[in-house]
Amino acid sequence: MDLTIIGYLAGIFTTFASLPQLIKSIKERDLSSFSLAFVLIFTTGLFLWLIYGILRNDYPIIIFNVLSLMFWVPITYLKIKEVVRNWKKR
Amino acid sequence: MDLTIIGYLAGIFTTFASLPQLIKSIKERDLSSFSLAFVLIFTTGLFLWLIYGILRNDYPIIIFNVLSLMFWVPITYLKIKEVVRNWKKR
Repeated sequence: MDLTIIGYLAGIFTTFASLPQLIKSIKERDLSSFSLAFVLIFTTGLFLWLIYGILRNDYPIIIFNVLSLMFWVPITYLKIKEVVRNWKKR
Repeated sequence: MDLTIIGYLAGIFTTFASLPQLIKSIKERDLSSFSLAFVLIFTTGLFLWLIYGILRNDYPIIIFNVLSLMFWVPITYLKIKEVVRNWKKR
């Protein structure tokens, strides 16, 4: 199998895996088992990958990370909202 | 800033983000807000990245994905266990 195809397949898997996660999270508004640190650091990392892709003019990296951010920015928003809500309750 | 540094920083962020997640998941044994599809597809994608890295002899890709798999294989195991447990309860 062509090496490039494995790379694209890997990118498609790790990127689009997050789509069912976003759908579930929006539906259930429950992110209690997610670590806040994970969500924040992971999304920051995706931003860094995007900057890296832009500076290197690497279109696959740009496209995969723009897509990933479209899934993870809303998940991060929902997680922060949950943490703030729980913090206010105390 | 050196481009390579941004790339490594991005890899460190997206990889080590999962460490606090693994710690939380092991402690609380709760993965209810994780989508099974996300966990399975994401971990499969990490395996594909590892294969891609090995075939291309690309050490950063190999190292980052071996580390990521060390975090995500146990998380996947815990999620599958939870799904099986809930399925037996019904």
